[in-house]
Amino acid sequence: MPDPIDFYFDFSSPYSYLASEQIDALAARHGRSVNYKPVLLGAVFKASGGVPLTESYGPKARYSVHDFERSARFAGIAYRHPSKFPIGAVAASRAVLWLQQHQPERATPFVHAVFRALFRDDRDVSDPAVVAEVAQAVGIDARRLLEAVQQQDVKDQLKTRVEEAVAFGMFGAPTIVVDGEVFWGNDRLPQIERWLSTGPF
Amino acid sequence: MPDPIDFYFDFSSPYSYLASEQIDALAARHGRSVNYKPVLLGAVFKASGGVPLTESYGPKARYSVHDFERSARFAGIAYRHPSKFPIGAVAASRAVLWLQQHQPERATPFVHAVFRALFRDDRDVSDPAVVAEVAQAVGIDARRLLEAVQQQDVKDQLKTRVEEAVAFGMFGAPTIVVDGEVFWGNDRLPQIERWLSTGPF
Repeated sequence: MPDPIDFYFDFSSPYSYLASEQIDALAARHGRSVNYKPVLLGAVFKASGGVPLTESYGPKARYSVHDFERSARFAGIAYRHPSKFPIGAVAASRAVLWLQQHQPERATPFVHAVFRALFRDDRDVSDPAVVAEVAQAVGIDARRLLEAVQQQDVKDQLKTRVEEAVAFGMFGAPTIVVDGEVFWGNDRLPQIERWLSTGPF
Repeated sequence: MPDPIDFYFDFSSPYSYLASEQIDALAARHGRSVNYKPVLLGAVFKASGGVPLTESYGPKARYSVHDFERSARFAGIAYRHPSKFPIGAVAASRAVLWLQQHQPERATPFVHAVFRALFRDDRDVSDPAVVAEVAQAVGIDARRLLEAVQQQDVKDQLKTRVEEAVAFGMFGAPTIVVDGEVFWGNDRLPQIERWLSTGPF
């Protein structure tokens, strides 16, 4: 079995959501799995000097929201721009790391459920109570999960993950790494598909 | 005949070059022509707070050059990252505007020739003498062109073009406008193709 694809993302990133809806199938077509790696883009931006698209220059910010919606329609993915945006998804991100270690079969369904709660159902997934509801709906013991995300070792893991991402040069989301090759953005899925089909080009 | 596609670009923009190599054929497949609109991205960035990709945060700048090259290979387009980059292509941009009025059949071949001189042959197209050579090679009277780009009315036209671009909210290149719908980036060619095929989505 070849190595999984690393998918670095922030729950608050629309293009991460759009890519997350396509990457599992894309990977599977080439015998790969996807390793979901949540990071906090705010911390990455702090290191890189980046800003959220919707907080950039007015015309760019307005274009971005239009482009999120149009890109979703282009890919046939439901999208409603969240009324609270961007958000900090600390609890949900820690929950992913804990699930990957303790209930690995539930981690990926949870990732998709959180993304959809935010970008389809306009739920405020920065709120741990909302995260708990989302977890419950995919069969996770929500009380246990909420306890887990307060554990120091889980907090530290997310911090380490962010530091690693900054160290390897991540500057935006999603960042998708295939056998050491770095691709930035939902727009790069066609190149990733080519890379997986034919090897390096 | 439906309206032409407006293609706002800067000669120093690698993604504009990559899109320019594909947009004529794409437009023609849908009975459209392309109206090439040179702007000076430096002036646009001044208004929008943007910076050239290669002058951004180190890892993003390094990724960008790698991505220019990989995106070119992906599209089957020759690309050599220029040794002098970015450059200010004022004379070449004015030349396009003058040609469109006085020798319209030579304007588009000249656009492609300038792009290729920069991104295939590593010529410094900020130098009017190089622009003259490029013009000569596509059958343009170079002496007359060099005189034209010094005319005040031609200078003013480029200035006006940049002001118009800033006014409608351009913030990066290429910006491609199809029947009033704005698309930013070489990455949006597939969406443009869909739009031209099926109408608004």
